[in-house]
Amino acid sequence: MTVAKRVRLAMIGGGSGAFIGEVHRIAARMDNRFELVAGVFNADPVRGRASAAAIGIDQGRVYENEMAMFAAEARRDDGAEAVVIVTPNHLHGAAAMAALDAGFHVICEKPMTATFAEAEALAAHVRRSGKIFVLTHTYTGYPMIRQARAMVAAGEIGTLRRVQAEYAQDWLAEPLEHRGVPGAVWRTDPAKAGLGGAIGDIGTHAFNLAGFVTGEQPTHLLADLTSFVAGRRLDDDAGILLRYASGAKGSIWVSQIAVGNGNNLSLRVYGTRGGLEWRQEAPEELWFTPLGAPKQLLRRNGAGVVDAARATSRVPSGHPEGYLEAFANLYREAADAILAARTGSFDLRALPNAEDGLRGLALITACLRSSEDGCWVAI
Amino acid sequence: MTVAKRVRLAMIGGGSGAFIGEVHRIAARMDNRFELVAGVFNADPVRGRASAAAIGIDQGRVYENEMAMFAAEARRDDGAEAVVIVTPNHLHGAAAMAALDAGFHVICEKPMTATFAEAEALAAHVRRSGKIFVLTHTYTGYPMIRQARAMVAAGEIGTLRRVQAEYAQDWLAEPLEHRGVPGAVWRTDPAKAGLGGAIGDIGTHAFNLAGFVTGEQPTHLLADLTSFVAGRRLDDDAGILLRYASGAKGSIWVSQIAVGNGNNLSLRVYGTRGGLEWRQEAPEELWFTPLGAPKQLLRRNGAGVVDAARATSRVPSGHPEGYLEAFANLYREAADAILAARTGSFDLRALPNAEDGLRGLALITACLRSSEDGCWVAI
Amino acid sequence: MTVAKRVRLAMIGGGSGAFIGEVHRIAARMDNRFELVAGVFNADPVRGRASAAAIGIDQGRVYENEMAMFAAEARRDDGAEAVVIVTPNHLHGAAAMAALDAGFHVICEKPMTATFAEAEALAAHVRRSGKIFVLTHTYTGYPMIRQARAMVAAGEIGTLRRVQAEYAQDWLAEPLEHRGVPGAVWRTDPAKAGLGGAIGDIGTHAFNLAGFVTGEQPTHLLADLTSFVAGRRLDDDAGILLRYASGAKGSIWVSQIAVGNGNNLSLRVYGTRGGLEWRQEAPEELWFTPLGAPKQLLRRNGAGVVDAARATSRVPSGHPEGYLEAFANLYREAADAILAARTGSFDLRALPNAEDGLRGLALITACLRSSEDGCWVAI
Amino acid sequence: MTVAKRVRLAMIGGGSGAFIGEVHRIAARMDNRFELVAGVFNADPVRGRASAAAIGIDQGRVYENEMAMFAAEARRDDGAEAVVIVTPNHLHGAAAMAALDAGFHVICEKPMTATFAEAEALAAHVRRSGKIFVLTHTYTGYPMIRQARAMVAAGEIGTLRRVQAEYAQDWLAEPLEHRGVPGAVWRTDPAKAGLGGAIGDIGTHAFNLAGFVTGEQPTHLLADLTSFVAGRRLDDDAGILLRYASGAKGSIWVSQIAVGNGNNLSLRVYGTRGGLEWRQEAPEELWFTPLGAPKQLLRRNGAGVVDAARATSRVPSGHPEGYLEAFANLYREAADAILAARTGSFDLRALPNAEDGLRGLALITACLRSSEDGCWVAI
Repeated sequence: MTVAKRVRLAMIGGGSGAFIGEVHRIAARMDNRFELVAGVFNADPVRGRASAAAIGIDQGRVYENEMAMFAAEARRDDGAEAVVIVTPNHLHGAAAMAALDAGFHVICEKPMTATFAEAEALAAHVRRSGKIFVLTHTYTGYPMIRQARAMVAAGEIGTLRRVQAEYAQDWLAEPLEHRGVPGAVWRTDPAKAGLGGAIGDIGTHAFNLAGFVTGEQPTHLLADLTSFVAGRRLDDDAGILLRYASGAKGSIWVSQIAVGNGNNLSLRVYGTRGGLEWRQEAPEELWFTPLGAPKQLLRRNGAGVVDAARATSRVPSGHPEGYLEAFANLYREAADAILAARTGSFDLRALPNAEDGLRGLALITACLRSSEDGCWVAI
Repeated sequence: MTVAKRVRLAMIGGGSGAFIGEVHRIAARMDNRFELVAGVFNADPVRGRASAAAIGIDQGRVYENEMAMFAAEARRDDGAEAVVIVTPNHLHGAAAMAALDAGFHVICEKPMTATFAEAEALAAHVRRSGKIFVLTHTYTGYPMIRQARAMVAAGEIGTLRRVQAEYAQDWLAEPLEHRGVPGAVWRTDPAKAGLGGAIGDIGTHAFNLAGFVTGEQPTHLLADLTSFVAGRRLDDDAGILLRYASGAKGSIWVSQIAVGNGNNLSLRVYGTRGGLEWRQEAPEELWFTPLGAPKQLLRRNGAGVVDAARATSRVPSGHPEGYLEAFANLYREAADAILAARTGSFDLRALPNAEDGLRGLALITACLRSSEDGCWVAI
Repeated sequence: MTVAKRVRLAMIGGGSGAFIGEVHRIAARMDNRFELVAGVFNADPVRGRASAAAIGIDQGRVYENEMAMFAAEARRDDGAEAVVIVTPNHLHGAAAMAALDAGFHVICEKPMTATFAEAEALAAHVRRSGKIFVLTHTYTGYPMIRQARAMVAAGEIGTLRRVQAEYAQDWLAEPLEHRGVPGAVWRTDPAKAGLGGAIGDIGTHAFNLAGFVTGEQPTHLLADLTSFVAGRRLDDDAGILLRYASGAKGSIWVSQIAVGNGNNLSLRVYGTRGGLEWRQEAPEELWFTPLGAPKQLLRRNGAGVVDAARATSRVPSGHPEGYLEAFANLYREAADAILAARTGSFDLRALPNAEDGLRGLALITACLRSSEDGCWVAI
Repeated sequence: MTVAKRVRLAMIGGGSGAFIGEVHRIAARMDNRFELVAGVFNADPVRGRASAAAIGIDQGRVYENEMAMFAAEARRDDGAEAVVIVTPNHLHGAAAMAALDAGFHVICEKPMTATFAEAEALAAHVRRSGKIFVLTHTYTGYPMIRQARAMVAAGEIGTLRRVQAEYAQDWLAEPLEHRGVPGAVWRTDPAKAGLGGAIGDIGTHAFNLAGFVTGEQPTHLLADLTSFVAGRRLDDDAGILLRYASGAKGSIWVSQIAVGNGNNLSLRVYGTRGGLEWRQEAPEELWFTPLGAPKQLLRRNGAGVVDAARATSRVPSGHPEGYLEAFANLYREAADAILAARTGSFDLRALPNAEDGLRGLALITACLRSSEDGCWVAI
């Protein structure tokens, strides 16, 4: 008789009202594999306690800062064993390193840190720690992305030739940061977001997704970053060309000013024997064209879908799953790893990790340099 | 400081492995408004306890039958206050009536009962009980369905003329019941499913949805039911024409043998001033054409969307929500009602209820009669 | 060395300004297989001659009535050998019979006549005449409809179970006939259109297309016709259920008041082994789902497309062909038949003919009777 | 009484069997504004005469070379007044210059010439000639592209920020030139195609379209050209970034090896106040999103469409027009200009001309230089 075991989780950031904190909580809850037991929700203790109450956390386990939480939770028999970090970007690094030092596993929002140097330090720290570090590149959790990855790995498209990734939004088409919209304020502030604007916020997702599906990383890139909105301090649009060691070529377009685009992440990959096309806003569908044959529409849990994709699926084909389910897939796999780590070794399998985080910061750094110099740069 | 309150819920049916039981559990958990505390998961006590363990229910609160559960839970201070019924159809009625008698609120799968007579009895029982009875017509929980309903009510399409509803699947295109597939076995068995096959299983959803959005109910129908698969005892396809007192006309097509259709529920409504079109497999999109103007694509949480739709939404536009979120919306609203009922009166608002359940059985009954006689019948 | 031969054609109706006349002229011209040499364009001789000038017809070959034209053209060595009839419906029958009597081949707009009796007489006339009679059910000319027909005939969907045909428009959602819009005036006038409104104008197309693709004709139908627009004398919407001798079932929805629909003809057919789905507004695409396999997107001139479909195609896949090309396919095939008839026997192959026209009038008649009686009727 | 006047046209290249020659003939014929009277169809006189016979050209007006044709036709009262050039690229320039010198108007396939120097010479020649020179950038003929152009000009998207153009095909994913496929052989041969492969064949279309719609031309570009197929002598894929004087940015992706793409040209333009999106394979639809409002689907001849778009339309909305109709729109406008030129001055209006051709060669030249140097270059 298998008894359901749950991971005890603490949260840093994500007080009630913060979009991404609530997303993490829903994702953690969906499969009942986590119990949120503690948190540092706000620098202001009064607001922090109010958040905890609204979320349903015991007032005795709301802390004023991470160090206090790590110390207190480490002393409890039923203390948190993992922490999730959902603060603005510049706070990720220190919190993650302290958590690892205190013996906690870490689930962390992307980009991993605000600077490349910090990312290097953290990645090294993770390697030494023996702890689990999961970076929530949400879109890797979609079943049909798992399907695409499996198909590329199985040679279904042959040798990779072309990668076309796009991540287009329009919510920053106007200067929302000047109107005080919270998510816009910190995302356009170099002190909090780091030196990448759109490229850090969403470009890292597109870049990570391309690597996740193709299994290849580019060696060089050329980028052209723009801040279209007057007074904006970070990029809100970027065109990027990629070159791979294999000879493959790629392109990433990132924009937060493309009017008519909500959260339009897409990936198309073409090889010698076939092509695959996917769009996040219709995530249940993966288009596959074998060379010389009709285009096929593969659907989550439908005909032709591999076990690796089925394993991340909850309901039958035709009953749409979406963003929260993709997110919950990362949490489910993180729970598997953390529970395995209780008694022995763990395997992160497909989960994005600190090395992915480091690559994300390398992307931002390379884009900034290339855009300034107008040249191809190594990544 | 608002403290999160949660409804204490017990489940009847839905042992681990049952598709719909797990869907209800995820939906109940998603917004953290319910705590699943007890259950009767299986007629076999050993399997029932195993399910409880897997689900994470205290072994002391797994019961061998409903009556035992009602009695025991009613005695506890922390006992369940609501039950959810996810058994095969023929068991809904008795369980629901007993639960109401024992003072529990009820959340029930559709169709409400296996027979019209039983539905009448249950609906009367609900009216007398003062308890909450929610029928999980999941699709009414979609935000863009709420949007459509609000727009029709606000006169955006003018006077209703035409309703086109479809619910097409293909999973019963072959005789799965003869191969022992569990969901197919009971759904094609009149003793367990009632006298409606496809018409009961999915036709009631399409019918309910049309009424939910238009605010009108047909007075007469003509139906042609077919069992295409050799040896099948219930219908697996139905064509239905509808007439409304207002002069509006409608059509419902229901099929479980339409190869290429997964869970293809769609609704199109046309009036004197506009048209609305929605498809469950792309549930984030509602197409609106005002007479003489371009077609508009309304998206969940996007421009032009009313508060009633936004209220059932968790993440920004472009981050797809789906079936589980729609289901969770019903649970969230049920929690609101149940918590309100703790201290006073409640309001089911848009939630499907026993009257909807009664109409669903009236649909099945009328379709069977019309199909046999080849005539229009009153509904 | 093959020298291009062209059919000499005369037109009845379709003076400049008439939509459908110009469509026929473009279609006849597209493949350079016809030469329009004569015509009766208008009852008013002055306007008729003006039309001829604008169209580029020799003034000496504009006639004031059909009989004069038939006589004069028959005397010329280079006289017309075929006539195309594009008048309002009530004039088709007499013109066609006179043309056949005078020895001309006939291309005729649908519906074939205004009454069933007249259709019977004309069909009999055609059978006796030995002449070519082509009814321009345009939509049968689409390459992907040819593909669908070939696939059904080849058994790709197995035994037919379900036919879902729709033809929805919105241009008559308002009483345009009361505002004097010419096409609306005659189409809603029983004296000119016959007794079918939407059912005659577009329902016959949907019905014909279903028969063309499936190769089966229903034996019984039940119809519910409505005139939604106040004061309208003919139906503008119809729901129809179909029963086939094979046990297959079908449905046709026809509407000219469905706001948001331009010329939304669609056909879906489902059998024991597969399903096919096609939509006139995206005519290059045919969706094919083999039972248990992923949905495939077949495209005109693309992979998996049969010769019968390729033969009706002019440009490569991805260079959209449309309505005029479909129309021109009928003309091209009519030219083949007429040129063959010059020297011997001809074969109409897939071309819609007088028997199709008769079935169209049978449909209208049956729908009217069923709608009035509320009963299933034989067709 | 207006009498239809027709332009007398001669063709160079495009013997029977050549794809693009037949496309031009259909386009010229569609609106009955041209009469094809003469031609040089093939270097081999026997095959040239056979082509003429098949096409329906008088054998006395088939010529063995351009100079003979120009001389003979110029002497006739009913001689050709315009020539259309549909040879491989390297022959365009000389033929066009000779035609202009002989007093003929010219309609010419793109790219205008094989080299930039030749393009400069021809453009200068055209300026001096007083003759009409039309470059058949087909896609500018689509009604919804005219709509997009008009909307941008009217300020509907505000100040331009981003241009995303793509032209993806897959027909050269394999080395067809080594298998002797005629269209592949010359298109991959630098001596016949010029120095641009995909960039010349289709990149020039995408580039032209972007300029046509936005009214802006980039000042700098960065390109990365690839020949993916082993042994191919010209590029079959290109990633290009664009910079505009206005500060706008752009991207063009061109590929002939992207498996699953037929003729997938698309254009998306985003400004401060709105966005427009169009795809050649669904050419009837233009998506317009005004900032902060729902996305609208504008359809050819539908609501919200301007006169400039309606003027290039033949049939009502919902009756698909396509590639041949777009092509015919250029011919129709060329006929208007040529007929006007008979008696006075002409206006090419929206028609692509020699300046566009020059810009196309500038694109190819700049792409080659940038791709070799890895730097931004002026265009």
